[in-house]
Amino acid sequence: MTLFETITRLRAVRYFTKRRLSDETLTRILQAGRWTGSAKNVEPWHFIVIRDKDTLNKLSKCGRYASHISGADTAIVIVNERSHFASFDIGRASQNMMLAAWGEGVGSCIASLHYESQARTLLDVPENKDIPIEISFGYPLPNQPLTIEGRPREEVLANISRRPLKDLVHWEKW
Amino acid sequence: MTLFETITRLRAVRYFTKRRLSDETLTRILQAGRWTGSAKNVEPWHFIVIRDKDTLNKLSKCGRYASHISGADTAIVIVNERSHFASFDIGRASQNMMLAAWGEGVGSCIASLHYESQARTLLDVPENKDIPIEISFGYPLPNQPLTIEGRPREEVLANISRRPLKDLVHWEKW
Repeated sequence: MTLFETITRLRAVRYFTKRRLSDETLTRILQAGRWTGSAKNVEPWHFIVIRDKDTLNKLSKCGRYASHISGADTAIVIVNERSHFASFDIGRASQNMMLAAWGEGVGSCIASLHYESQARTLLDVPENKDIPIEISFGYPLPNQPLTIEGRPREEVLANISRRPLKDLVHWEKW
Repeated sequence: MTLFETITRLRAVRYFTKRRLSDETLTRILQAGRWTGSAKNVEPWHFIVIRDKDTLNKLSKCGRYASHISGADTAIVIVNERSHFASFDIGRASQNMMLAAWGEGVGSCIASLHYESQARTLLDVPENKDIPIEISFGYPLPNQPLTIEGRPREEVLANISRRPLKDLVHWEKW
């Protein structure tokens, strides 16, 4: 895939094979996150890498749509500082990591950690930092199920495509 | 550049040549933004594309560190819905657009629009949407100045590298 294809064909992958990510692949994913730019270069993030099955299972209970974590090879929890642009910046870092993975054939899916205090206890995260999301990584299972958390995909994800450019691009002014 | 190199070598570019972006390149940048994933697929964004010199100059006065806009070939202002994960999602979309550009040799820089109401008036943006940032695009000027807004780069950007992985990666727990 070209860079453009990697970017435009990235899709959430929720079901994974048991194939392990190599240390080299995992390191490249982490480096992609590490090199992300941030407002005033504050790098408002830490990454907790989880590969232990028991911890993955427990983490999968920390969000309403997080069951994919239990089948992931690796989960990366983004820990962020409470700075003004942190949400924007961790969005950039997450995209970098997911693209670096996708370029090597590794699928990924973001989960909101709705039950943050539960995740905080599980992972010993300090009270002065946020852990809004986790990213699951693994090699995509072929013929993925058409349901998410037991509900049809289309019901959970209203749009399976994207709005066309003409509906979202404005020229010179709104 | 490989995908991994494109991701890890992306840097803010604030000074641009007068070379125009082709329509094809601009379209690929916009498509990269359009195809970004978002929480519950709500796609909480619109993009305002600005190429008019007078508007670029006026927009460059709408942020404290936004003077690079006046020298850009094209500015894309991200207009976002006020939804819960919008900041995170527009961070992802911004990263996609900057990477798609960088892969074609086009540099970019994010500017905060600190004087948002001024930008809102300039661009006729509805009151119920936010316009936190703009991205400047253009071909990089060789031998870029070592100052930003007249101040030495290092003073404005405390870190010119990134923290090493060992300082930000935790295994299994914090």
